[in-house]
Amino acid sequence: MVESRVQKKPKERIKQAALDLFYYQGFHSTTVRQIAQRAGVNPAMISYYFKGKRGLLEQLMVQFYEEYFNVIEQHQADDMDQGQLTPYQRLLSTLSASFNYLFEHYQMTRFIYRELTIDSTLIREIMTVYLGKEKYYYITLLEELKQAGTLRSNDVEMITLQLLNTLYMPFLQPQMIRKVYYIEPHSDEFKQRYLEQLNFFVENCCR
Amino acid sequence: MVESRVQKKPKERIKQAALDLFYYQGFHSTTVRQIAQRAGVNPAMISYYFKGKRGLLEQLMVQFYEEYFNVIEQHQADDMDQGQLTPYQRLLSTLSASFNYLFEHYQMTRFIYRELTIDSTLIREIMTVYLGKEKYYYITLLEELKQAGTLRSNDVEMITLQLLNTLYMPFLQPQMIRKVYYIEPHSDEFKQRYLEQLNFFVENCCR
Repeated sequence: MVESRVQKKPKERIKQAALDLFYYQGFHSTTVRQIAQRAGVNPAMISYYFKGKRGLLEQLMVQFYEEYFNVIEQHQADDMDQGQLTPYQRLLSTLSASFNYLFEHYQMTRFIYRELTIDSTLIREIMTVYLGKEKYYYITLLEELKQAGTLRSNDVEMITLQLLNTLYMPFLQPQMIRKVYYIEPHSDEFKQRYLEQLNFFVENCCR
Repeated sequence: MVESRVQKKPKERIKQAALDLFYYQGFHSTTVRQIAQRAGVNPAMISYYFKGKRGLLEQLMVQFYEEYFNVIEQHQADDMDQGQLTPYQRLLSTLSASFNYLFEHYQMTRFIYRELTIDSTLIREIMTVYLGKEKYYYITLLEELKQAGTLRSNDVEMITLQLLNTLYMPFLQPQMIRKVYYIEPHSDEFKQRYLEQLNFFVENCCR
């Protein structure tokens, strides 16, 4: 049969179908059969490409986080090249890069944080490594601020925890933003306003 | 039959059993039969006292939030009586009362925020009212700070959002605290350290 429309490759279609279904119904409620049906492929192809549902999830998460850390590292390398940035400016600039990336991948970010919250063993196993790596990047940046005598607190670990919590908030609690604050968490307006708040938070942590 | 041990009344036993099961398996995965079995009562008693699972949840949440708002209001009344507290001290003192209450009701708080995150329509309906009320208390306190010219930002709504997000964090992301930061989120040590961070946040928002 000749495809009449230009279509994505089966592997990409499977990944997108899985992400959509994981997002709407959660990982545990999604079956391989549903993914295959949505992607328009034979279920056997999912075994072939990904060795099943868990493999598919792992590949989605690896891809998401590899790209995320690339963005952060590339960003830090650029900042280094410029040379004249202070630790404070580097932190702000990295934070903004993180937020933009997570915001651009709204569906995936939201899915991950929701699954983490409902205490899924599977996600937790995979995530601990990535969250540890993300923590490391930010603790390093904040330690630099502390060394420079610019940080107002000595508890760098707690500030990092709070900073990352602030970064995740729009993906963790969109319902609260929407229903209690009447702001659409997926809008450009919110993004802009929230980015200013992230900056405000960092500013306030510093002398 | 004569009970050999002193036992709680059936209504209280049902509430505790429901909370335990909602906490461990979520609201949707818990059946009336399971609650009855755990409480050691006939399932018909749950209909009689609570008109079913939803009524039981509503009663648990009403009780939790009525008590929560009583704590906040009583606290604010006491502060008013003292007379000499600044808006800044009132905010700190209310926040600490909130955090202590949520921490003392760890299981219930954790259950509510988890359900909110997984986008349960039921919880959302009930919660919007309570979260709106909580927001109102804090926006009022922060507006007083703004009026007094003490607040560093004009976006009181965003600061409130961030402040409450910081308040909820230990209940929303205990796994991250435990697995990535290696701190036990249910310990007194963490409570103390986190309370200091909450104060630090408020302090930083002010001139």
